[in-house]
Amino acid sequence: MADYQAPVSEISFVLNDLLDVPKLYALPDFSEASAELVDAVVEEAGKFAAQVFAPINRVGDLQHSRAVNGEVVTPDGFKEAYQLFVDNGWMSLAQDPEYGGQGLPFTVHMTASEFWNSANTSMALCPMLTAGAIDVFAAHASNELKAIYLPKLISGEWTGTMNLTESHAGSDLSNLKTKATPHDDHYLIKGQKIYITWGEHDMTDNIVHIVLAPLADAPAGVKGLSLFVVPKFLVNEDGSLGERNDVKVVSTEHKLGINASPTCVMSFGENAGAVGYMIGEPGQGLACMFTLMNHARLEVGLEGVGLSERAYQDALSYARERVQGRSPATGDSISIIGHPDVQRMLMQMKSLTDAMRALCYDASMSHDLRTHGDDEETRDYHSTRFALLTPVTKAWCTELVNEVTSLGIQVHGGMGFVEETGVAQHYRDARITSIYEGTNGIQANDLVNRKLIRDGGAGVKALMNEMTQSVESAGDFPELRDAFRAGVSELQETSNYILDNHKDSDYFEGAVAYNYLMQMGYVCGAWYHYRSALAAHKKLQSGEGDSQFYANKLLAARFYIHQMLPRAFAFGSAVRDGAGIGSELNEQSFS
Amino acid sequence: MADYQAPVSEISFVLNDLLDVPKLYALPDFSEASAELVDAVVEEAGKFAAQVFAPINRVGDLQHSRAVNGEVVTPDGFKEAYQLFVDNGWMSLAQDPEYGGQGLPFTVHMTASEFWNSANTSMALCPMLTAGAIDVFAAHASNELKAIYLPKLISGEWTGTMNLTESHAGSDLSNLKTKATPHDDHYLIKGQKIYITWGEHDMTDNIVHIVLAPLADAPAGVKGLSLFVVPKFLVNEDGSLGERNDVKVVSTEHKLGINASPTCVMSFGENAGAVGYMIGEPGQGLACMFTLMNHARLEVGLEGVGLSERAYQDALSYARERVQGRSPATGDSISIIGHPDVQRMLMQMKSLTDAMRALCYDASMSHDLRTHGDDEETRDYHSTRFALLTPVTKAWCTELVNEVTSLGIQVHGGMGFVEETGVAQHYRDARITSIYEGTNGIQANDLVNRKLIRDGGAGVKALMNEMTQSVESAGDFPELRDAFRAGVSELQETSNYILDNHKDSDYFEGAVAYNYLMQMGYVCGAWYHYRSALAAHKKLQSGEGDSQFYANKLLAARFYIHQMLPRAFAFGSAVRDGAGIGSELNEQSFS
Repeated sequence: MADYQAPVSEISFVLNDLLDVPKLYALPDFSEASAELVDAVVEEAGKFAAQVFAPINRVGDLQHSRAVNGEVVTPDGFKEAYQLFVDNGWMSLAQDPEYGGQGLPFTVHMTASEFWNSANTSMALCPMLTAGAIDVFAAHASNELKAIYLPKLISGEWTGTMNLTESHAGSDLSNLKTKATPHDDHYLIKGQKIYITWGEHDMTDNIVHIVLAPLADAPAGVKGLSLFVVPKFLVNEDGSLGERNDVKVVSTEHKLGINASPTCVMSFGENAGAVGYMIGEPGQGLACMFTLMNHARLEVGLEGVGLSERAYQDALSYARERVQGRSPATGDSISIIGHPDVQRMLMQMKSLTDAMRALCYDASMSHDLRTHGDDEETRDYHSTRFALLTPVTKAWCTELVNEVTSLGIQVHGGMGFVEETGVAQHYRDARITSIYEGTNGIQANDLVNRKLIRDGGAGVKALMNEMTQSVESAGDFPELRDAFRAGVSELQETSNYILDNHKDSDYFEGAVAYNYLMQMGYVCGAWYHYRSALAAHKKLQSGEGDSQFYANKLLAARFYIHQMLPRAFAFGSAVRDGAGIGSELNEQSFS
Repeated sequence: MADYQAPVSEISFVLNDLLDVPKLYALPDFSEASAELVDAVVEEAGKFAAQVFAPINRVGDLQHSRAVNGEVVTPDGFKEAYQLFVDNGWMSLAQDPEYGGQGLPFTVHMTASEFWNSANTSMALCPMLTAGAIDVFAAHASNELKAIYLPKLISGEWTGTMNLTESHAGSDLSNLKTKATPHDDHYLIKGQKIYITWGEHDMTDNIVHIVLAPLADAPAGVKGLSLFVVPKFLVNEDGSLGERNDVKVVSTEHKLGINASPTCVMSFGENAGAVGYMIGEPGQGLACMFTLMNHARLEVGLEGVGLSERAYQDALSYARERVQGRSPATGDSISIIGHPDVQRMLMQMKSLTDAMRALCYDASMSHDLRTHGDDEETRDYHSTRFALLTPVTKAWCTELVNEVTSLGIQVHGGMGFVEETGVAQHYRDARITSIYEGTNGIQANDLVNRKLIRDGGAGVKALMNEMTQSVESAGDFPELRDAFRAGVSELQETSNYILDNHKDSDYFEGAVAYNYLMQMGYVCGAWYHYRSALAAHKKLQSGEGDSQFYANKLLAARFYIHQMLPRAFAFGSAVRDGAGIGSELNEQSFS
């Protein structure tokens, strides 16, 4: 396995040349940001990821985080690495300066987060969950709770968790058995939660659990749910840590991957009841939790980018070193990177990763603009755009990371299947991303029902107008432009087909959703690659910068549009020709 | 994880209704075979797989086979299960009666082999390697060597291995460092081989290594290679076991999957030299080894079928049991099999598995007919057809098994990522199949260069004529027929495109090969599904048998043709529009 190197030039190209992220720095809320500062942050984050998180990725996979006598022991080096992360202020990049944050755009935080995910996905999950908890506090908690918890979470001194799932129903939250009972100024929580990422560990003094549960007398269903903060240690008035709360880890799961990230079964209130404080209003728990989940969904899409980048770097390095076979042109002995099918695999990895990355940062930009845009129109536009791009980012990137990390193994041949090489870990680590934070099936249903159908296609149409404008405003590559334009038309056609026919069957939306989402992902990818080709061409013409880098951007765009974009048509056909058979299936169809 | 049940009805449908395997039983060489006998064999093999091999699949994954002091210890129960396999004569189904075999068609052996692979892929590899060794002996060894080794291999009392790869070059055999030196009536072998499946174990008294190595004075390159048999224990003239040979296991690999199958580093001749006997002529080693490899390639494709079937059964069982969410039609609480996206995943798994299975058995039939067909024309026709279908079977099925086993995890949600559930093992076990026995890139190059271009497209044209005849000879499903016909035309177009343009660049063949192979796989799949629809329709009309089973065959065919076949067009576009950019890539294209 190669040493990880943060793709700083790639990031710079995406932020500055492809997406115009610097326009965010002009917004009043981001007065701290500047292009120079962001470059420096990206550079330093890359070094930190490579030097601190990457070296303990394999030991984390081998040792696992494991529950021992009610505590979780993290792998060698994790506690020290996390402390360095806190000391260097990496948790606070995009957080509110009022509580100690650095006030940079979310999009800038995402670049650093990409590097953490490439270097050590298991470790990256810990701050990711903390960031989610911060968002919940910031949006819904009382000022009193904010004052106690936000500074500690934003510094990273305490970490956060998210407690939704119970064993009898994973994604279905309508029938939770955990209960909260009012008691003095707080609530007593009793029940068991599963799949709690970093639910217990030895890296910080305190852990802040965000728990979804109904009040004891609440109505049944999701509308009865409220949200609570349940700290591992209670916090005294002076901010010092008090008693141990009545919450503990029961066990950790033995998983396919992300072994250093403890996935805990958590038990609340085995004795008197775990002390919790309500966040937001009674019955608003799920709505509050969605704040966290939307945020987390983009970050899970980004995990796909991070692991894909890592797999690509390892495969590229191996392909350059490994001498085997002969050149089809000269007959000379060559490194395997000289074989056209190896080049295909590498370019497939590369061009998909580039497309995924652009989608993640574009969605992140909309997240910044929906909150910090300088007029209401901008904020409204980007609210819709962010809502639309979120399920696509989460699901498309996490479907593709399985392909890219699998290709990473394939380039290594037999060595890829041997765990010592390290690339099988990326494949194992990646596999959870299409499941957690809402399975990709749930993302697809969200896209079709809430993002396409609910507003009668307005949001999708707006996005496709942006695409059409890209096509019209430039034309240096007529062949790429025509292929991309055909992809856009086809997506429009599929969108209209769904809008026109979804009332045909109760099963229609569910039957077409996945294929529609995948089609949209591939067309978005072509959009970014087309714009990337234009941007690179401009750079080449100006003679600025690294000409090989820009020439390779053009190659990647051509490869993607000619070899990957055709998949969008296949998914579109599967929607339009396949909706009938899809809607017709039932429980008896499988013998 | 559900208990495995051999898909006996499926097999019966494929053999009898879809492919007309019974016509083999009329051939003189298969006088032992009859439809009744084959039904009984399939039934019993299914029971054996379910009752003996399946129960130790998980323990094999947990314990691994491991090297201890120069021996390999297999997981609990493996030795006893293998002994039962030998006692029941399962090794000898399709072997030569002259040496103790049962003289059934290879295609019948493949049904049993599918079950072994579903039940316990690691275990199934051991007889698979032995079968390869048997083929090498049968085709190339002297009568003396045959008399010593064939009865013991055919009974399964001894097992076989295949020793090609060395650490400095995996797929490239032109520069092997292992050497063979003549000595008395035998050769002394010295060198190290890696990736030796079941290279050492404790299940049998002897292990028969087939070793590829150059004679000490042989010319460089693959033409200098010869083939040797190197038994673990030398064999006395009376057939009893003699001295331990100078061959030993150095270590076993720690792998992503197939953990119960020991993947050994083998050392030959650390002392005086390992005693080996030449098989075939000097310098003919690679040609002889290809006998084994062709055979093994179909069996690896079949591993894809076996693991896909297993993953499907587990997912279906879980989807029926797991209650979660509400019906989109009635709003009632339902099992997840009631959700259309879960139905999509299950039908994708099912329809791909069915297509893969039909391809495997169709290729196997050609293997039977190329050797045992009753006239030369038949044998010639099926020699070409087998040669063409082999790389498609190997590579297409092993690409798809990664998708199908991944969907198996996805249907389980978070539970799928937890190793205890057992379905992650299928995903891990499957990942090697696209690598070993010739990577899928090598298969694709074989298809394009040796099977398409070398005979100017004659073999491909013959296969496509068969497809066209299927379309013309029936027409109960005009919509399916038209879609299938379009797939055939497109494949013809891509084939012609390659034939017309492959001289454009030295890199052309390698750049298009993978996408061409995948296109051919999907079109073949549509062919089998189209015929399956016709066969099922006939059964439904006749009122014979299980009408739900046949109705579901129709559903699977419609699903495949409308939702999976569109992928063939995407791969075809990637060949025709992507050949240019593919051929243009070079070592500098990746920054």
